[in-house]
Amino acid sequence: MSRQSCFKALVYGAGGMAGGELLRIISGHPTLELVGAVSQSKSGSAIGSVHPHLRHIYSKTTFISPENARTVEADIAFTSLPHGRSAETVRELLDRGLSVVDLSADFRLKDPATYERWYGISPSQPYLLREAVYGLPELHRTQLAGARLVSGVGCNAAASILCLYPLARLNLIQEAFLDIRAGSSEGGSTATAGSHHPFRSRALRIVEPFSHRHLGEVAQELSLREETLSMRLSAVETVRGVQACAEVTLSSSLKERDLWRLYRDAYGNEPFVHLCPARPAHQRFPDPRLTTGSNNVQIGFALREGGRRCLVVSALDNLMKGAAGSAIQSANLMLGLPEVAGLNMQPVYPV
Amino acid sequence: MSRQSCFKALVYGAGGMAGGELLRIISGHPTLELVGAVSQSKSGSAIGSVHPHLRHIYSKTTFISPENARTVEADIAFTSLPHGRSAETVRELLDRGLSVVDLSADFRLKDPATYERWYGISPSQPYLLREAVYGLPELHRTQLAGARLVSGVGCNAAASILCLYPLARLNLIQEAFLDIRAGSSEGGSTATAGSHHPFRSRALRIVEPFSHRHLGEVAQELSLREETLSMRLSAVETVRGVQACAEVTLSSSLKERDLWRLYRDAYGNEPFVHLCPARPAHQRFPDPRLTTGSNNVQIGFALREGGRRCLVVSALDNLMKGAAGSAIQSANLMLGLPEVAGLNMQPVYPV
Amino acid sequence: MSRQSCFKALVYGAGGMAGGELLRIISGHPTLELVGAVSQSKSGSAIGSVHPHLRHIYSKTTFISPENARTVEADIAFTSLPHGRSAETVRELLDRGLSVVDLSADFRLKDPATYERWYGISPSQPYLLREAVYGLPELHRTQLAGARLVSGVGCNAAASILCLYPLARLNLIQEAFLDIRAGSSEGGSTATAGSHHPFRSRALRIVEPFSHRHLGEVAQELSLREETLSMRLSAVETVRGVQACAEVTLSSSLKERDLWRLYRDAYGNEPFVHLCPARPAHQRFPDPRLTTGSNNVQIGFALREGGRRCLVVSALDNLMKGAAGSAIQSANLMLGLPEVAGLNMQPVYPV
Amino acid sequence: MSRQSCFKALVYGAGGMAGGELLRIISGHPTLELVGAVSQSKSGSAIGSVHPHLRHIYSKTTFISPENARTVEADIAFTSLPHGRSAETVRELLDRGLSVVDLSADFRLKDPATYERWYGISPSQPYLLREAVYGLPELHRTQLAGARLVSGVGCNAAASILCLYPLARLNLIQEAFLDIRAGSSEGGSTATAGSHHPFRSRALRIVEPFSHRHLGEVAQELSLREETLSMRLSAVETVRGVQACAEVTLSSSLKERDLWRLYRDAYGNEPFVHLCPARPAHQRFPDPRLTTGSNNVQIGFALREGGRRCLVVSALDNLMKGAAGSAIQSANLMLGLPEVAGLNMQPVYPV
Repeated sequence: MSRQSCFKALVYGAGGMAGGELLRIISGHPTLELVGAVSQSKSGSAIGSVHPHLRHIYSKTTFISPENARTVEADIAFTSLPHGRSAETVRELLDRGLSVVDLSADFRLKDPATYERWYGISPSQPYLLREAVYGLPELHRTQLAGARLVSGVGCNAAASILCLYPLARLNLIQEAFLDIRAGSSEGGSTATAGSHHPFRSRALRIVEPFSHRHLGEVAQELSLREETLSMRLSAVETVRGVQACAEVTLSSSLKERDLWRLYRDAYGNEPFVHLCPARPAHQRFPDPRLTTGSNNVQIGFALREGGRRCLVVSALDNLMKGAAGSAIQSANLMLGLPEVAGLNMQPVYPV
Repeated sequence: MSRQSCFKALVYGAGGMAGGELLRIISGHPTLELVGAVSQSKSGSAIGSVHPHLRHIYSKTTFISPENARTVEADIAFTSLPHGRSAETVRELLDRGLSVVDLSADFRLKDPATYERWYGISPSQPYLLREAVYGLPELHRTQLAGARLVSGVGCNAAASILCLYPLARLNLIQEAFLDIRAGSSEGGSTATAGSHHPFRSRALRIVEPFSHRHLGEVAQELSLREETLSMRLSAVETVRGVQACAEVTLSSSLKERDLWRLYRDAYGNEPFVHLCPARPAHQRFPDPRLTTGSNNVQIGFALREGGRRCLVVSALDNLMKGAAGSAIQSANLMLGLPEVAGLNMQPVYPV
Repeated sequence: MSRQSCFKALVYGAGGMAGGELLRIISGHPTLELVGAVSQSKSGSAIGSVHPHLRHIYSKTTFISPENARTVEADIAFTSLPHGRSAETVRELLDRGLSVVDLSADFRLKDPATYERWYGISPSQPYLLREAVYGLPELHRTQLAGARLVSGVGCNAAASILCLYPLARLNLIQEAFLDIRAGSSEGGSTATAGSHHPFRSRALRIVEPFSHRHLGEVAQELSLREETLSMRLSAVETVRGVQACAEVTLSSSLKERDLWRLYRDAYGNEPFVHLCPARPAHQRFPDPRLTTGSNNVQIGFALREGGRRCLVVSALDNLMKGAAGSAIQSANLMLGLPEVAGLNMQPVYPV
Repeated sequence: MSRQSCFKALVYGAGGMAGGELLRIISGHPTLELVGAVSQSKSGSAIGSVHPHLRHIYSKTTFISPENARTVEADIAFTSLPHGRSAETVRELLDRGLSVVDLSADFRLKDPATYERWYGISPSQPYLLREAVYGLPELHRTQLAGARLVSGVGCNAAASILCLYPLARLNLIQEAFLDIRAGSSEGGSTATAGSHHPFRSRALRIVEPFSHRHLGEVAQELSLREETLSMRLSAVETVRGVQACAEVTLSSSLKERDLWRLYRDAYGNEPFVHLCPARPAHQRFPDPRLTTGSNNVQIGFALREGGRRCLVVSALDNLMKGAAGSAIQSANLMLGLPEVAGLNMQPVYPV
C-alpha cells in the first residue's frame, strides 16, 4: 500500500468487551480506520453509551446493524461474536473479499470432531477450518503474513500455550497440569447469576476442575495429546487478567540454565513476551496486573529439585493478548503492517 | 408464654438476601422456629442450593410455595417481597391471624399520597398504613410491643434516621444533606447490567444525585419536611454495608459536649447503637465494615468551627440492622421476647 | 465443674488478628471469661482502639503487659505470638499451672530437626514438643481431652489436612499437589510492602511455588513423607479465607461412591466439617466465602475419569477454623466443656 | 528545536507511584528522553525491580542517586518528592538552568502563610512561590508556555478545581461542599497501618471531615475565600481514581442549558476534559474507572429544582491527570511541544 493509505476495518460484536478493546486499539492505530462498529442489539446507539470511556473518541459514531454493514466498504473485519454464530458471518465476509480475524471459537480447532466434542455442535463451515490460521504470532508468524482468515485465540488457551510452547516444541512435556485463574471480564458483558456482584466479588470459584474447553486448543497448538494435559479454571477477584500456572513433568531432567535458554530461544525476539527475572524472589512469577491494558505477556518459571518438574507461570490481559491485542497483532501481519502497529500501549500499574 | 414454647415463623421471599439473613438469625434464635421458607421461584429446591452457607443447618429443608404456605400453622410471618407485591400477602397473613413484619416498602409510609409519589403506584392496602408500626425500635419501642403489623425499614433510611434522630427530636435540624454509600447487596439477588461484576466492581457510581426514594421515610420518621433533606446515593465497592454521612446545618449553635449529650441521651441504653470515640482521630467516624454480620450501628460525629454545622456518620450492615436484624428485633418486641434474642452475633472484622 | 463456674482465660498477642478473633469468640462463650488481653506493644490502650468492632463489648478494658499478666489468676492461656518468641512464654505459663493453647508454629512439629529445617531456628523448648497435642479435634479429639499443652494449627495446614485426611488414613495417597489460595489476613496485622493496598489489591501472587512451610505439619499429621506432597501458596484478593485445592494421585482406583463413603465416614459426625453436594455443579467445590466468620469447613471433591486421580477442595476462614476457632474448640475439649461451646456463629454470606 | 532533537529529562522520586507514571509516559513520548531516574533509596536497583510492569522498557536502566544526578546533562526535571523536601532540590535544578515541574506541594500555594497554615512548616524557598505556575493547563495555558518552574497539582485539588472552574470564573459560587472519594494509590508507595490490605480493603473511611489540605489550592486557583468551600475526603475501595462531588449553592439561579453553556465554553476545546451526557441517566455522572491510565477528566452535572443548587461531579486518574499526566502536559507547554504529546493513551475499561 502507499504510505498514506489506510485499511478500513469493520468490527462485529463491537458492543462487547473484546469489541470495546478493538475500538480502543483501532482509535490509536496508525493504519487501521474504523468504518463500522457492528452490533445487532446496540444498532443505532452511540458508541459512548456502551463504551463510555471511549465517548470522546467516537462522539459522533453509532453502532450499525449487520444488515447495514453489508454495504460498507472495508478491507478487514474483526468478528467478536458468540461461538456457533460467528462462522456464517465470517463466510459472508470472506465471500465479499475481506480479510477476517474471528475472535470466536469457531475456527480455532482444525478437526471438526474435536470442535464438536468441546462445543457440542458441529462446525457450520468445516471446510474453512483448515484454512484458518491460529492467531498467535509467536507460533504462526509466517503463516499469518498474508492469511485471509485468522482465528483469534482463547484467552486461557493463549496464556497456556505461551507458558508451555518453549518446552512443547522440544517434546519436553510428559504431563502438564494447568491451573488457570481468571477475572470476571472473561465471561463477557452479559450479566448472569454467576456474575452478580454480591456473588462474584472475591469469589474463589472452581469453574471447571479438570478439563476447561480451551484444552483442545492448547493440545492442538502444542501438538500434545489431550491426555497429557489437564486444565482447571478458577474464577478469582479481578476484572481483567488471566494467570496460567503450569506444573510440568518433564520428559527429561533439566537444569535451570537449560530452562532459561529454552525460553530465551523461543521469546528473545518477541515484542510482547517478557521473561521474569529469577530475582528478586517476589518477582519470579508474574501477576496479570503487570500487563493490564497492554498486549504484553509475562512468563516466569522455576525448576524443582531433581530437575524433572517445573512450574511455569504466564500472565496476560485477557481482553488484550488474550483477545483483541492478539487479533490486531495478527491483522498487522495479515496486512503487511509492522507487527506492533497500534499496540504500543504500556501496562497501567498499579490499578 | 411458657418456657418451653416457641413461636412458629414463616419467611416469605426466603430465597432473597434479606431472606437468607432471616434464616441465619432464626437458626440461632432461642424462641423462633422456622416452619416455612416460602419462595415462589425456588419452591421445591433445597435451602442449601440457594444459601450454600446455611446448607448444614437446613440440610433437609426445601423452599415451599406460597400456596403450600397457606396451610402451615404459624405465629408470625416475615415478608421479604418486592414492593407492590408484598401488601396483598401481608393482608392475607393478618387475616389468618398471624403477626407480620413486612420488609418491603409497602407499609413504611403512612400517607398513601406520599407512597404513590415515591413508588409510582398507589398502595394496595391503604387502610393498613396507619396501623403498621415502623420497625425501628430506637424510635418506636413502645408501639412495637404487641403490634400486629410492623413495617421493616429501608436500609438507607435506617442509617439516615439513626444518624439524625438525636438532633431531629429536639428540632435542631435546619437542613441536612445525606450522602449515602452502599454496597452491592442492597440491590438484592437478581443480576442486572448494573450489578454485572466487571461494571460493578470498584464502581463509584452516583445512583441518585438528590433524592433517593428512602427520603420519604426519613422525613416521616424524623418529622421533617422533605425539603429539609437531600439524599444522594452512591454505589461503592463492597457487598455489605451502608454508610450515611449527614452534613447538618443546625438551627442553633452547639458545642461538642452538647452533641455528645444529645447522642448519649438518645442511645445510651440502646443495645445495638454505639458511639465512636473522639479519639483516636481515625476512629471518629465509623466504617460499615465494623458492623458486618451483626445488628450493630456505629455513629460518629464532629462539629465544625462555629458550632452551626456538624457531620454525623452512621454505619451498619444493610442486610442486618438495615433489614433482617431490625425485623427480628421488632419481632422480639411484638412477641414479648427479650429484644436482643437471637441477635447476639458480633461483627466479623476484618473481612 | 459446677454450673456457675467459669474458666479464666488469658489471651497473649491479643492485639493481633487471631487475638481479635479470640476476644470475639470469648465474649460470647458461655464458660470462658477473659481476665487479660495481653499485648506488649498495645499495653495500656483500650481494646476498642485496636479492635474497633469490639469496642462496645470491651468498653472498659485495656490491654495489659506480659509483666502484669504474670500476676493475673487464670486457668487457661491462648498465646498468639510470633513463632520463636512464643515457646518461652508457653513454658512459663505451664510452670504456673495453666493450660495453654499456643497459636504459633512453635509446638506444631514433633521433631526438633523438622522444626529447624522449616523455621531456620532450633526449638527453644524441645522437650515440650512431644507433649503438645496438635489442635485439630477432627484428628486428635481423644488426646485433646485433658491435654495441658495444645498447639494451634497453621491455617494452610488445617485446610490441607482436612482436605486429605480421609484419604491419608487409609493410605490412599500416592502423591498430592496442594494449591493453596489465601487472603491478606493470613499475613497478620503488621503492614509490609507486600501488604500495601495498591500492590496487594487484586494480587495473583505466587508466594511459594513448591513447598510452603506448612508442608511439614501436613506431612506429620497425615503420616506422609514430605516428598509425597507439594504445596504452592498463592495470595489472592480477599481478606479472610483459605482454599486448599488438592490434586491427588490415588494409590488405588476408586469410584465416586467410595470417595463419598470415605469422607462421610471421616466427617459424618463432625460438628464443623460439611461436605458439598455433587449437584448443583457450581456448588460442588467450596468457596471460603461460605465460611466467613464461622468455625466451619466445607469440602468438595470430584474423581477424574479412570478413578486414579481426584480433586479435593476445602475452604475455611483462616482466622477461625484456621486459628482462633480451632483453638477454642481444642480448649473446650481440654477443659471438658461441650466441644462446640462459643462456636455457634453461622457464616455471614454474601460479604 | 530542530525536528530531530529531544529534551533530556530527569525524574526525581522515580521509585514512587507518580514517578512510575512519569517513566511510563516518557517511554512513549516523542520528544522527551529519560536521562536519569533519580531515587535516593533505590539507587543502584534496576527500574524493573521497583516498576515490574516497565521492566521490558527499561531493562538496562538503574536508578541513580541525587548525587550522581548532579552531573547528568538535562533540559527538564520532574521532582516527585515529599513536600518540604522538594523545594531545595528544585532550587538547585533551577540554578543549574533546568526547567522544573515539581509534583510536591511545595510550590502550589502563592502565599507563604497559607502554605505554613496547611502544611505546618514554612516554605524553604519562598521567593520562588510567585514564579511557580500552577500546572493545570486548563487554567494557565498561557503562563505555562515558556515557564521555568511549574508546580504540579494536588490530585484532589485538580479534580475539585476542574469541577468548579466554569462556575467560579463567573462568580457563580456562593458555597461549595466538596465530597472527594479517593483510591489507595493517593497515599503513595509507602506501606502504613492505614494502607495495610486487611484494613484498607473495601474501606469507607472518612479521612478528613471538613477541610482536606488541598482546600487551600482550590480556593487559590478559583479565587474563592476558603470559607466558601468545604472538602471532605473519603478513602474508598479502589487503587486509582479520584471522584469529586461538588454540591454547589449558586449565587444566582440557573437553567440546565446555562450550565451546559458554561461548561462547554470552558472545556469545549480542551483535549482532556470531557462532559458526560445528560442521558442515559446512569452515565450522567462520571466514574473514575472511565479514565484509568489516561490523562482524561470526565465531568457531569445536574441542577436541582429551583436552579440555585447543582451537583457537579468530576472523575480522573489521580496518578495521571492528578499528577504525572498534568505534569507532562505542562512540560509540553513549557518546552513548546504539542500539548498532548505523549499523552495519547486511552482509558482502559473495564479494569
